[in-house]
Amino acid sequence: METKAQVLYDFTAEPGNNELSVREGETITLTNQNVGGGWIEAKNSRGEVGLVPEDYIEVCSGFRKWLLQRRHATSNGNDPWAVFDNNASGGVSNNWAAQPEGTETGKTSSNAWHSGGHVHPQAYQGAGNNSNKPVLDYSGGEVGPVWAYPDYQLDCVVADPKKGSKMYGLKSYIEYQVTPTTTNKPVNHRYKHFDWLYERLLDKFGSAIPIPCLPDKQVTGRFEEEFIKMRMERLQGWMSRMCRHPVISSSEVFQLFLSYKDEKDWKTGKRKAEKDETVGVMIFSTIEPEGLPDLDLTEVEQKCEQFNRFTRAMDDGVKDLLTVGNEHWKRCTGPLPKEYQRIGKAFQNLSSVFTSSGYEGEAALTDALTAAGKTYEDIAQMVAEQPKKDLHFLMETNNEYKGLLGCFPDTIGVHKAAIEKVKEGDKLVATGKITTSEKTAMSKRASTMSYALQAEMNHFHSNRIYDYNRVMQQYLEQQVKFYEMIAEKLRNAHSQFTTM
Amino acid sequence: METKAQVLYDFTAEPGNNELSVREGETITLTNQNVGGGWIEAKNSRGEVGLVPEDYIEVCSGFRKWLLQRRHATSNGNDPWAVFDNNASGGVSNNWAAQPEGTETGKTSSNAWHSGGHVHPQAYQGAGNNSNKPVLDYSGGEVGPVWAYPDYQLDCVVADPKKGSKMYGLKSYIEYQVTPTTTNKPVNHRYKHFDWLYERLLDKFGSAIPIPCLPDKQVTGRFEEEFIKMRMERLQGWMSRMCRHPVISSSEVFQLFLSYKDEKDWKTGKRKAEKDETVGVMIFSTIEPEGLPDLDLTEVEQKCEQFNRFTRAMDDGVKDLLTVGNEHWKRCTGPLPKEYQRIGKAFQNLSSVFTSSGYEGEAALTDALTAAGKTYEDIAQMVAEQPKKDLHFLMETNNEYKGLLGCFPDTIGVHKAAIEKVKEGDKLVATGKITTSEKTAMSKRASTMSYALQAEMNHFHSNRIYDYNRVMQQYLEQQVKFYEMIAEKLRNAHSQFTTM
Repeated sequence: METKAQVLYDFTAEPGNNELSVREGETITLTNQNVGGGWIEAKNSRGEVGLVPEDYIEVCSGFRKWLLQRRHATSNGNDPWAVFDNNASGGVSNNWAAQPEGTETGKTSSNAWHSGGHVHPQAYQGAGNNSNKPVLDYSGGEVGPVWAYPDYQLDCVVADPKKGSKMYGLKSYIEYQVTPTTTNKPVNHRYKHFDWLYERLLDKFGSAIPIPCLPDKQVTGRFEEEFIKMRMERLQGWMSRMCRHPVISSSEVFQLFLSYKDEKDWKTGKRKAEKDETVGVMIFSTIEPEGLPDLDLTEVEQKCEQFNRFTRAMDDGVKDLLTVGNEHWKRCTGPLPKEYQRIGKAFQNLSSVFTSSGYEGEAALTDALTAAGKTYEDIAQMVAEQPKKDLHFLMETNNEYKGLLGCFPDTIGVHKAAIEKVKEGDKLVATGKITTSEKTAMSKRASTMSYALQAEMNHFHSNRIYDYNRVMQQYLEQQVKFYEMIAEKLRNAHSQFTTM
Repeated sequence: METKAQVLYDFTAEPGNNELSVREGETITLTNQNVGGGWIEAKNSRGEVGLVPEDYIEVCSGFRKWLLQRRHATSNGNDPWAVFDNNASGGVSNNWAAQPEGTETGKTSSNAWHSGGHVHPQAYQGAGNNSNKPVLDYSGGEVGPVWAYPDYQLDCVVADPKKGSKMYGLKSYIEYQVTPTTTNKPVNHRYKHFDWLYERLLDKFGSAIPIPCLPDKQVTGRFEEEFIKMRMERLQGWMSRMCRHPVISSSEVFQLFLSYKDEKDWKTGKRKAEKDETVGVMIFSTIEPEGLPDLDLTEVEQKCEQFNRFTRAMDDGVKDLLTVGNEHWKRCTGPLPKEYQRIGKAFQNLSSVFTSSGYEGEAALTDALTAAGKTYEDIAQMVAEQPKKDLHFLMETNNEYKGLLGCFPDTIGVHKAAIEKVKEGDKLVATGKITTSEKTAMSKRASTMSYALQAEMNHFHSNRIYDYNRVMQQYLEQQVKFYEMIAEKLRNAHSQFTTM
């Protein structure tokens, strides 16, 4: 398997020295990494081979790269990808027959790659950026294809909810301030704007990328502030997750949402986004990777099945944890503190009885007993407040993943449908419905979709590992503090009893 | 089973009216309590049957029955203490009239104190010691009169239960080895011997000193060993408490039980103890203190009431704590560990799902997650086992006190009865039923009883303070260890997650 690398700086070969001239941003293939002496042997796109200084290039790690190459794609009604355009249930649209022969090939040829260097975050700014297509980065590492990640991880802060009103105060709403870490320039959005963004992302990327639902509209707290706070927290979580996805975060519509310049800019951007035709399976037409070997159907099917099995299993696991967590929450805020309270009361009660004995030298015991009682009342309160400090985040994270996992069946359904379609290929050829070349093109697309799914799964996995590491650490850290504090309180209570 | 009652007032039957003449203090047997109209049918000691006014009699409680029985067994007509030998309601023995003047003084003189002060343990040894009278030590300190405590605190070890059998193995029994700290010479006793000792102590000291019941005969464990272990533990507690009481531990019968020389010695001692006539209120005749100012009735009554209030209040407090403790025990051994177990399972379950991802570099997280899961399973087990380590002793101690406090109503009843009697003094003198000197003697006895009660309450208080200090320290110490261990386990679990 060949390893690709990107050229960081121009390098001009010294004639007659078996060197290869390369240009910054150019992608080369490493042919021999064991040359030594700070050199490696590489081949450029024109097939020329020669030595290049090791530190002039960077091997694609997958997690630290942004797009190496980009292509333009125009989608129109009779786009060959339409064959895979179906609803989540996996049905297949039947505009296949309508597809004119050869379009496929013509299409491919028109998909020549441009070479280009790193795109820096600022390049995202404004709605004008038209160059942000999902890019597959086949690092050749063990994980397989991954999305090309930006050097700079985009994130944003959702904060400062403000009551706004319109129609002379007849209609009031909450406006959240969203500040991208790239510009630090805040923009305001109402929940319905987030909802609009969600719809756009779902339309555009839903077939390739699970787009988790927005925090439930019905999320409620006993008080409006509580409700707003909770919703904000969840919008933050949702936005951060979107920011962390290289394809989504670099998309025009997402960039518009995060950093529109003014109302006019926003309105124009909105209209444009709503007219975007690269939706549904069309997204795959924008990510046909070059230099990736076509996968055979079995392999495609295997991958799809593996991811399907995994996401279902994890869905069960997450739901199980949520159920257990909910019950634990109930106990920690209900019966358990009540019980500690009653223990505390019983001690204090006994203490006050003892005080009434009228016996000499009672105080030492009764004071200690009262203190012990109060301690258990404190513990009762600690127990009741603890879930907010630890269980809460564990539950929130798992709820997020529950939502995310809920999207996979649709995403995977798209792939399954494509696979089914390809399976029919031979029959279709036999019945003269399609040509052999069209059948080949179909398999090629299926393998592209599989690469996309692999990239997405790798994205999911890396994020999952990060998220669960973080949330478990957070949870256990708080639990440790909790039990240490209880032990500390009890140690104090213990010390007040006189040893005899 | 027949119900006995004591006659409160003289009643002379109307001839030809099917009534029965009875005398104050007389004991009768109820033959029909459903006569109605305020009458009940009774039979007197001579076997005569007839109707008696309901409110002229009082049905005897177990303890009162016992007092009555004892009185009939012991009181020779001219025992001045017999006047107080009655049920708590203040009924009067009918041999009062029969009591010859002057005997009182003679009796008193025969009860002159040996100014021996503290009785030393060695003096207790053997059954031959006849000088072990309860000794009041009027320290004049704030606490008032106390029992004279030996320099050396007697204690004993109940251990090494052995199955014995008799009648060629037809009947088997458990024999416990009892070793007094004084002699270190073990003696063997079966439960029924402890029971015999209890009966003797109750007979002899019950009016002045609360003798807690033996561990319930019905105490059972799922296994015989468990049952035996539990009973032994409780017999140990009971014996230690008896050893700690200076009056009981120095008594002949107790010394016999602890250190009889051989079967013959034991048998002889048993017979002697069973014939002991210094029982019931007679105990007070042995503790008339010299050099103690007589208390006036109001003071006696106040003390009595104070102790009554206190013991009842503590009884409530102890029962409350026992209820709470029982529920806590149930939760700690039932739902709580189940919940921690399920949390642990949920984590491990998620971990094994993650393992199936086939994603590179999964191991770090899944190992940590599994460890965290196992940790919560460990915690579940710790929670379930904890009550045996701390709550157990708290419960046992409070159960002991519940038993002890259950004896006070009867002990206090005896005092109340005496007080009532003295209150009647003037009337009795006026009606020529008793002489003034006899009335003075009565008050003197009442004040003696009050001193005894004060000494007993002081004994109770000092032991209570010691016991509750000890048990609370024990409880809290174990609780601290428990929570520290949990925190430690969680700290380990936390450390296994890789920080990113």
